[in-house]
Amino acid sequence: MDKPVRFVRIYFSETDRGPRGTLKEYLFEHLRRTHQVHGVTVFRGIAGFGQSGESHASDLLRLSADLPLVLEFFDAPERVEAALQDIRPLIKPGHMVSWDAFCNC
Amino acid sequence: MDKPVRFVRIYFSETDRGPRGTLKEYLFEHLRRTHQVHGVTVFRGIAGFGQSGESHASDLLRLSADLPLVLEFFDAPERVEAALQDIRPLIKPGHMVSWDAFCNC
Amino acid sequence: MDKPVRFVRIYFSETDRGPRGTLKEYLFEHLRRTHQVHGVTVFRGIAGFGQSGESHASDLLRLSADLPLVLEFFDAPERVEAALQDIRPLIKPGHMVSWDAFCNC
Repeated sequence: MDKPVRFVRIYFSETDRGPRGTLKEYLFEHLRRTHQVHGVTVFRGIAGFGQSGESHASDLLRLSADLPLVLEFFDAPERVEAALQDIRPLIKPGHMVSWDAFCNC
Repeated sequence: MDKPVRFVRIYFSETDRGPRGTLKEYLFEHLRRTHQVHGVTVFRGIAGFGQSGESHASDLLRLSADLPLVLEFFDAPERVEAALQDIRPLIKPGHMVSWDAFCNC
Repeated sequence: MDKPVRFVRIYFSETDRGPRGTLKEYLFEHLRRTHQVHGVTVFRGIAGFGQSGESHASDLLRLSADLPLVLEFFDAPERVEAALQDIRPLIKPGHMVSWDAFCNC
């Protein structure tokens, strides 16, 4: 656990659109191919709300098409900064958090 | 990523009860309406155990009704403190973690 | 939120093998029984890639058998260190992150 990294979580929804296709697909592929950041993982939440105060929930009877997603990744701070510079315009205010961590890199 | 926030994760189970309905519904609505904290998201785990040493697991053949849940949120430290004062009695010891982070708020 | 803890996230895949059975089962049971660490939870992602650059994605039409998993746990720093010493050889480089947090322990 020696190497310092910057850990990032970005919140959006399954229906959010990116420059091409869904925002999820765009961020995932862009971080992976252009920035080659380390270890991108996307998780689907079962309920969530953001600044809009709008809530999104899933239950057994209703398969929601607009559940909250979180994409997380981490890498050396300078590499994360470069990636964030690039994708920041696509992320709503208050929908990205980051903190310092250590990696077994 | 300029504004300092406090990031919180709270662990419980789908069958935990709150003052009204499930604990999940209570925490989610309470944080949302009363405290208006920023960005509450709930995730469902596929396996977990807490202090009881009891384990909860899902597999393809058995749809468990008692899977672990985690609710996460973040906001300005003073707003998070106010919310935690309020909900802390509902959370089992050792089932809440928090740390400092930065937000694009 | 008084007690300092070390928070750990470990990334792997549903098909990764451990010394016995899947890596998921091994890590989960080992952390639970041998190290008795506090609060282990496993989450399944819907898309991810690690150092290989390989991507794993789930969609409605294809039930992937190789989705990304993350196992998280936290406990007192010295207990986490003891557990990590033990499981570190099983974790791929760059697949484990950790940071300091506080717990309502």
